Amino acid sequence: MSHTNDHRQDALIKRLNRIEGQIKGIKKMVLDEKETAEIMIQLNASRAALQKISQILLEAQADHSLMHVNEGKDLEKEMSTLRRVITQYNKLN
Amino acid sequence: MSHTNDHRQDALIKRLNRIEGQIKGIKKMVLDEKETAEIMIQLNASRAALQKISQILLEAQADHSLMHVNEGKDLEKEMSTLRRVITQYNKLN
Amino acid sequence: MSHTNDHRQDALIKRLNRIEGQIKGIKKMVLDEKETAEIMIQLNASRAALQKISQILLEAQADHSLMHVNEGKDLEKEMSTLRRVITQYNKLN
Amino acid sequence: MSHTNDHRQDALIKRLNRIEGQIKGIKKMVLDEKETAEIMIQLNASRAALQKISQILLEAQADHSLMHVNEGKDLEKEMSTLRRVITQYNKLN
Repeated sequence: MSHTNDHRQDALIKRLNRIEGQIKGIKKMVLDEKETAEIMIQLNASRAALQKISQILLEAQADHSLMHVNEGKDLEKEMSTLRRVITQYNKLN
Repeated sequence: MSHTNDHRQDALIKRLNRIEGQIKGIKKMVLDEKETAEIMIQLNASRAALQKISQILLEAQADHSLMHVNEGKDLEKEMSTLRRVITQYNKLN
Repeated sequence: MSHTNDHRQDALIKRLNRIEGQIKGIKKMVLDEKETAEIMIQLNASRAALQKISQILLEAQADHSLMHVNEGKDLEKEMSTLRRVITQYNKLN
Repeated sequence: MSHTNDHRQDALIKRLNRIEGQIKGIKKMVLDEKETAEIMIQLNASRAALQKISQILLEAQADHSLMHVNEGKDLEKEMSTLRRVITQYNKLN
């Protein structure tokens, strides 16, 4: 794997660790019987953080597919890979 | 403009006409004082229809950008165009 | 129907008219072959406007249900009406 | 705290534990360099699970507020509490 990829992987793992910490924080809020509106703010923050990761992945896939085609790789294959990622990206929204 | 584009444009206009009809229908439901839950079902249908159009546009942009690069067009320019569309696609979600 | 309701109905119809105008504007953008990212910004604006209406309806239903129970109306019935609206509200999100 | 509340708290903690497990699973997928579309499916699953918790909290708050008003508690206070929760619920969507 390239250094660029190592770097991106690290960044994603850091984001996911932060989300894990947020979930633990929400559990504590539930056990401490915090107000519903307060808990929801934290649930929204975690959802937004997960969506941000999806956006990063979609952008990375778009860049990769374009670079691959630029390097002469199979157009059809790159189209179908990127389509599959777009379809998943769209699923929950 | 190519025949393919004409066809896609027609399909988008048809979808938008359908949404316009849905909005008129929702106005009638509001005036007829229909139940809130019923009105919401129609509001959701229109939102889903608008999102479907955004998905179609994103997929078309991805295909175009890949084809352009495949035809030897500027990689950086296509990357930035596709990025801009992905960023907008993501905005509301 | 009460004057309050008349007022709320008017406000909803105005919002829906505005959305109808936005959809017409998007059709024009498609026909004028505007950039995808620009069209998406307008699609998002219409989706956000539709969601705002759903939020207004949910808040109005919540207020109504609480007022009805306060006036001695059937608790179970109000619970189930409000639940149904919450379920719909949630559907697309 | 009532037995009912204990039960609901347990159910929420179980859901949050499951999401924590999902996040750990996504980290493993990133480290194992799984395909982007596959990772996105799991990100969506976690986001949907978080949203389900928000829906459960909103429904519970709606029920509580209606019951409180039915028991003679302050209407204005319950309205504003429920409004606050609806506003938060809506934020990310």
